[in-house]
Amino acid sequence: MKIKEMNIGIIGVGLIGGSIALKLKQKQIVNKVVGIDLNEQNLADALSLKIIDEKSTLDKGFKNLDFIIIAIPVDATRKILPQILDKISNTQTVMDVGSTKSGIVEIVENHPKRNRFVAFHPMWGTENNGPKSAIAESFKGKAAVICDAEDSAKDALELVKNLAESLDMHLIYMDAQAHDLHTAYISHISHITSYALANTVLEKEKEEETIFQLASTGFSSTVRLAKSHPEMWVPIFQQNKDNVLDVLNEHISQLSKFKTALEQNDFQYLEELISNANKIRAILDK
Amino acid sequence: MKIKEMNIGIIGVGLIGGSIALKLKQKQIVNKVVGIDLNEQNLADALSLKIIDEKSTLDKGFKNLDFIIIAIPVDATRKILPQILDKISNTQTVMDVGSTKSGIVEIVENHPKRNRFVAFHPMWGTENNGPKSAIAESFKGKAAVICDAEDSAKDALELVKNLAESLDMHLIYMDAQAHDLHTAYISHISHITSYALANTVLEKEKEEETIFQLASTGFSSTVRLAKSHPEMWVPIFQQNKDNVLDVLNEHISQLSKFKTALEQNDFQYLEELISNANKIRAILDK
Repeated sequence: MKIKEMNIGIIGVGLIGGSIALKLKQKQIVNKVVGIDLNEQNLADALSLKIIDEKSTLDKGFKNLDFIIIAIPVDATRKILPQILDKISNTQTVMDVGSTKSGIVEIVENHPKRNRFVAFHPMWGTENNGPKSAIAESFKGKAAVICDAEDSAKDALELVKNLAESLDMHLIYMDAQAHDLHTAYISHISHITSYALANTVLEKEKEEETIFQLASTGFSSTVRLAKSHPEMWVPIFQQNKDNVLDVLNEHISQLSKFKTALEQNDFQYLEELISNANKIRAILDK
Repeated sequence: MKIKEMNIGIIGVGLIGGSIALKLKQKQIVNKVVGIDLNEQNLADALSLKIIDEKSTLDKGFKNLDFIIIAIPVDATRKILPQILDKISNTQTVMDVGSTKSGIVEIVENHPKRNRFVAFHPMWGTENNGPKSAIAESFKGKAAVICDAEDSAKDALELVKNLAESLDMHLIYMDAQAHDLHTAYISHISHITSYALANTVLEKEKEEETIFQLASTGFSSTVRLAKSHPEMWVPIFQQNKDNVLDVLNEHISQLSKFKTALEQNDFQYLEELISNANKIRAILDK
């Protein structure tokens, strides 16, 4: 079955779920998108923005849905995923979009329907939430990770591949543990840095008006992620605690080198630290 | 004399000097822009990009220039500014664009031509350098700071005000010490955070290909400033050392709170830290 004949259920019509639904609807490659959300306002917004065709609830079940996309915080995904697998048949597929994967694949490791689930992570997000923040073209050109592909049925994988193609994403395959290690470096630590930077400025700079007036594009860019909501990020840090702590310790140690260089007036060392950091350009601008 | 009748000298035709010149040239509100740069390639690029009309050297002096804009690293500005003031008359004006101000105003504090100098800081920049990175519209809507205005002559201030208006910037006035304190919070610490984050990832994530493939928009945004060159930033950190160290110590202490929360599985505390950081949204989105 191709995506275009399918009824798709989106559990959590927020930024990510909403953006996926919006793209599929705009491309007119689905039969129907059904939204499920605990937040009635999100459902109302998603309906009026034509992100979803109709709303439903978890209690009503998933019988008429071919493809169920879970786009809620990772702790809620861990709770709900086994219950969904309990209820679906071998022709239905479930996918998540969470930023951590080990905790999620672990919870369904021995589930008899494990192979109907595909662990998916689109590498895109913003500091905003809710269906009003959804952007159809958001995923274009970005990477998406499929974890532990060998544990998913071939037709389920094929369906997720089709979805990634429809979103114009390129796929990367890795196991859940490697995924969580890499995302700690590439995504999770950036959020902690940003939160801590915001708290630093809020703590030290009591003149809010001055922050507002002076805030340069550089500051706004570095602190942008600090707007991200705790409902999404606390569970991510919780589920990826060991990796995040490991990278956070390294980050504090790297910051301490800048401190040492300044305290000792060792500007040669400071230059070396900065020149080393400049190497990130070659990697990011590849 | 209005800007449009003036011959303007830009010392350092890089990102900032080039962007100012480009805007003035595009608006056709100057008579002539003369570029001075130790880097011959920058001069050649600036000429071919029509950012400057002609090139000159420091040795040739400034006799035909009405308005001299110094846009070079802050340590070089400290060296060159007194020499320029030595050579100019009471009808010529000098302005800098540096990110630190105390060290610069201090060096000319007792100069007989101090009042021909205006300490100016446009709150815009990117991680790129050189005249090829210049953008005419870069300053639009951004803040610019004039420091210690009382030490500058009225006509010199008026000229800089006209320039800020031509660049579509709004002016803020503060003394040099307050400026350096606020920029430590709003700009300088963001750069250290970004550099340290780049070094963290480069140290821990040996799989460069994975960084490249996975790097999300969030990571790229947080680490963008880490591309900024040491020639510009080492002198800034050097001249603003005490303020930067103060904010850096606070930042390490804020990061340590995230570490403690994770180590102690205190996710309530983690949520509080994140919710506090979220307050930056209200300030930035004002």
